[in-house]
Amino acid sequence: MKKIVLVAFDQFTDIDLFLMWDILGRNTEDWHVRILGSSAIVLSAHGLPVSVHGPLCEANSADAVLFVSGKEGIPAALAAPDFLPSFELDSRRQRIGSICAGTFILERLGLLSGQATTHPDARSSLQALGLEPMDQPLVCQGNVATAGGCLSALYLVGWLVESWFGVDKRRATLLPVLPAGQQELYDALIGFSIRQALTGRQGALYDKPSQQETRHGMSSNW
Amino acid sequence: MKKIVLVAFDQFTDIDLFLMWDILGRNTEDWHVRILGSSAIVLSAHGLPVSVHGPLCEANSADAVLFVSGKEGIPAALAAPDFLPSFELDSRRQRIGSICAGTFILERLGLLSGQATTHPDARSSLQALGLEPMDQPLVCQGNVATAGGCLSALYLVGWLVESWFGVDKRRATLLPVLPAGQQELYDALIGFSIRQALTGRQGALYDKPSQQETRHGMSSNW
Repeated sequence: MKKIVLVAFDQFTDIDLFLMWDILGRNTEDWHVRILGSSAIVLSAHGLPVSVHGPLCEANSADAVLFVSGKEGIPAALAAPDFLPSFELDSRRQRIGSICAGTFILERLGLLSGQATTHPDARSSLQALGLEPMDQPLVCQGNVATAGGCLSALYLVGWLVESWFGVDKRRATLLPVLPAGQQELYDALIGFSIRQALTGRQGALYDKPSQQETRHGMSSNW
Repeated sequence: MKKIVLVAFDQFTDIDLFLMWDILGRNTEDWHVRILGSSAIVLSAHGLPVSVHGPLCEANSADAVLFVSGKEGIPAALAAPDFLPSFELDSRRQRIGSICAGTFILERLGLLSGQATTHPDARSSLQALGLEPMDQPLVCQGNVATAGGCLSALYLVGWLVESWFGVDKRRATLLPVLPAGQQELYDALIGFSIRQALTGRQGALYDKPSQQETRHGMSSNW
C-alpha cells in the first residue's frame, strides 16, 4: 500500500488540491492519500477551510509527495520559517511532484535542475532561477515531476500511477473523471503528455501517436 | 452582478464541486458564487467537510443554479424529504445545470425532456426514465444544461459564462486552469463541446472546427 501525501498551506489554489485529492481518493486498495499542512486547518485561496490529516513532516516517510500551488500561498509558504525545514525528501526513494507554482518549492528544496514547467504566467520567474522552463504540461526528471496549468494535475497523477502500477492502472484511475463521449481523446492526450514528459520530445502535440500509443488501441485521429 | 449557486449535499463528488468553485471563484467582478446545502456543513464523498454559504432555498433567487453529483449522495439527496421541495426553479429566468448524476435532480424537478447527458456509467438509468442519453460531455436545452464526466464541469462553466458574457469572457475564465503548452488545444475542445451542445451536432469530434471556430482563430489541426 503506497502512501501519497498532498502538501497544502494557506491560500492554496483550490483546484490543485481537490483534483488530485478526488482522483487519487477513489482508489483505496493500492494507495492511501492524505493532506498535510503546517496548521490543523488550511484556508484555500477562495476561502474554503480544509482540515489537514497530518503535519508536514509526514511527507518525509511518504512514497509520493505532491505539492499544490497558490499565487499568494506559495510565497507565503516559502517565507514561513517552519515550512521548508519540515522536509527531508529524497528523490531516490520517493516520487516528488508539483503543480504550477509548487515548482518553486521543489526548486528551493534543491530537487530541480535543467528543465521544469509551471503555470505559463510564472515561466519567467522559473527562468530567473536558472531553470529551463518548458512549454509543456508535465516535465519529468527521474522521480521528480513538475506540472503546469491546474488541469495538468491530471497528467501528474497519471504519471505517478503509471510509474508505479503501469498504463492500465493509470487508465482505470483517470477514466471515471473524463468527459462523456471524449474518453478516448483524453486518454490519448494523457498518454501523449506523459510520454512527452518522459522522453523530452518537443512540439509534437499534433503528431501521430507513437507506436506504443497505437498498440494500446488509441485513435490516431486527434 | 450575476449570482451563481452550487448545490451540494452529503457525499457529493469532490471534484464536481471544487472544479466549478475554483474556476468561477476567480472572477469577482461579473458574478459571485456560493455553495448551498441543507445543513451548515456537507461532507464530501472522500470525507472533506465543507461549510456551506447558504440554505438550498437561495437557489430560487439565483441567476444560475448548478447541481453537483455523488454516486451515493444523489440517491440520498433525492430521498431526503427536505431536498427537492426546497427548489422552485424557473428555466425561463434562470440558467440551470448539472454534472454527472446531478442530471437526476434536474429530471425530478421536471426540467428535462428529450436529450440529456450524465456520467457514462449512469446512462442506462437515464434511459429508463424516458430520456435520450447522449454520448457527449454537454447537452443544452435552452437554459438547461447537463454535463457528464467530472471534467465536463469545464464545459458546463464555459457554457454558462459564454451564454451570459460571450466567447471572450468564457476564454478568459477558463484559460488560467488549462495545461501549459496545450491551451490552444483545450480552448478548441471547449469551443467544440459547447457548439456541439448548442447545435446538437453529433459524432463530429474529429471534424474540422466550424466556420465560427475558425473565425475565432482556433487551430484546425486537432
